[in-house]
Amino acid sequence: MKIAVDVFGGDNAPQAVVEGVVLALQKESGFFVLLCGDEEKIKAELQKYQYDAARVEIQHAPDVIGYDEPPTVAIKRKKDSSLVKALEALRDRRADAFVSGGSTGAVLAGATLIVRRLKGVKRPALAPLLPTRAGGHVLLIDCGANVDSKPSYLQQFAVMADAYMRDAIGVKTPRIGLINNGAEEEKGNELTKTAYKLLKATPVEFSGNCEARDILSGEFDAVVCDGFVGNVVLKYTEGLASVLLGMIKDELMADMRSKLGAALSKRAYARVKKKMDYTEYGGAPLLGIDGCVIKAHGSSNAKAFSAALLQAKRFYGSDVNGAIARAIDALPAIED
Amino acid sequence: MKIAVDVFGGDNAPQAVVEGVVLALQKESGFFVLLCGDEEKIKAELQKYQYDAARVEIQHAPDVIGYDEPPTVAIKRKKDSSLVKALEALRDRRADAFVSGGSTGAVLAGATLIVRRLKGVKRPALAPLLPTRAGGHVLLIDCGANVDSKPSYLQQFAVMADAYMRDAIGVKTPRIGLINNGAEEEKGNELTKTAYKLLKATPVEFSGNCEARDILSGEFDAVVCDGFVGNVVLKYTEGLASVLLGMIKDELMADMRSKLGAALSKRAYARVKKKMDYTEYGGAPLLGIDGCVIKAHGSSNAKAFSAALLQAKRFYGSDVNGAIARAIDALPAIED
Repeated sequence: MKIAVDVFGGDNAPQAVVEGVVLALQKESGFFVLLCGDEEKIKAELQKYQYDAARVEIQHAPDVIGYDEPPTVAIKRKKDSSLVKALEALRDRRADAFVSGGSTGAVLAGATLIVRRLKGVKRPALAPLLPTRAGGHVLLIDCGANVDSKPSYLQQFAVMADAYMRDAIGVKTPRIGLINNGAEEEKGNELTKTAYKLLKATPVEFSGNCEARDILSGEFDAVVCDGFVGNVVLKYTEGLASVLLGMIKDELMADMRSKLGAALSKRAYARVKKKMDYTEYGGAPLLGIDGCVIKAHGSSNAKAFSAALLQAKRFYGSDVNGAIARAIDALPAIED
Repeated sequence: MKIAVDVFGGDNAPQAVVEGVVLALQKESGFFVLLCGDEEKIKAELQKYQYDAARVEIQHAPDVIGYDEPPTVAIKRKKDSSLVKALEALRDRRADAFVSGGSTGAVLAGATLIVRRLKGVKRPALAPLLPTRAGGHVLLIDCGANVDSKPSYLQQFAVMADAYMRDAIGVKTPRIGLINNGAEEEKGNELTKTAYKLLKATPVEFSGNCEARDILSGEFDAVVCDGFVGNVVLKYTEGLASVLLGMIKDELMADMRSKLGAALSKRAYARVKKKMDYTEYGGAPLLGIDGCVIKAHGSSNAKAFSAALLQAKRFYGSDVNGAIARAIDALPAIED
């Protein structure tokens, strides 16, 4: 299989992207890459490494879409951008999967306009994995692909999450929760109250409402919410984690005894950091697109890009999209 | 001033409530308490402590409203409950403030039905304080008093937050943020896009959109959001903090060296716990009610109840409600 890579997407592009590609090629066999971007610059980066040249192809794309550009306009205007060229390769089946660390808005707009949605899918959804207390992961869907959602979108998110967790991550029977402001069935706002009824009638393992305090409890393999709420949860995770770890660091340095203790506990903190480190599990799949799209974190380093590529390989190899298409097709049509 | 206390509200009632009342009486002068609940049981608890009996009055209220009861029904039916009696005392001005650790839904319903809203207030809002990286606090409003909000509600929340942070907490010019899915002005869902325009035209220090990762940054003194989102943020704070601290604990115990280090760092961890400990800053004011209502955390211990009582005293002493009424009255009428 072949992965189209937007080499100029991300804060550390192109260096971290190319290094990540090389790491992934060294780590696993069974896939090829199509590197999209300025050919000369890509070659210059590749020269730094040892790699199997037979697995690497370059598609020249001199243009770059920046974070500050209005997504839809940029996608339509910048036909020669690394992002557009990579997505076109996916659309034309010259590639089987796609990875970019570029602007989320541009990746969403591009995937929807160029690659298109899977038949029957109302809205694609961005679905990153978060670490749980139990040591596993929970899929958070939708994380910002849509700001205003309808109940039927949430039902489709549940079906897509079920397919991804089962086929790509290997969870036998994914337990799906609905993020809500209370555990009881009658709780919720207009959206979640209706969504709850729909989810009860959906052929997935619906575990009911998930209060925000339980998102990371390990009781759920995926939690469904509208993109605004998911965006808040995802970004607040970053914010609160850094605030907490920062407070701990300050206090550990505040007295000699604690300082010494911290020095001795270094290894423990390294392990916690590793558990919380998003670079460990690559990027977030954009589910509902007629192709395997992985959005890597904008600040991804080489390790994160390498993980995102291998995630894209698993995504394609597991026929998640086939499962999603079949499941969506089996849902009763809802006009809301 | 006199504080009406719902002695039978909270997981640890009545013991923790009565002990908290005694702690508060010992800590500060200048206020009296009206303890509402089963007289015999309250007397039995009071007998355990030394306190100034001249400052304590008991109002017999044999009934109790439980967590599982439908709020509005319970408020209307259980006229002899400690919650209803305490709220009636506030309504009739036999008390100047009110504290309860009972069911949030019942406190909200009771305050709205019995005490009523301040003139011009569309929706009351629950507004707890969260600790920030900078060592200060940020007011999160609304935290669940309303599940579906309109732009004009968010505008009123901003005005109420401004008054509370200025008059009750002593922040000179509170910086108000709007929780949104991006920092740029054009970002948001239907609700926040319109709310942004309203907030720009509101006589408060509007600091623009606040991405969830910046809620605890210290750049904002209050952040405005609809009650569903606020509920998610508040509960996720509990969840993520305990998951993170749990992970750290596990890892510290995982190897001998780290274990020893942890033992040496005990004091530092105690200080972090104290910073994160909600019992340090009492309860959450329910703003927009024609009286000073403080909702204490359901699992409050004596220390938390004592803090909640002193918070109620400051709330009343600072004429926050007068400021809110004047500010709301000055806002142009909006029909949305």
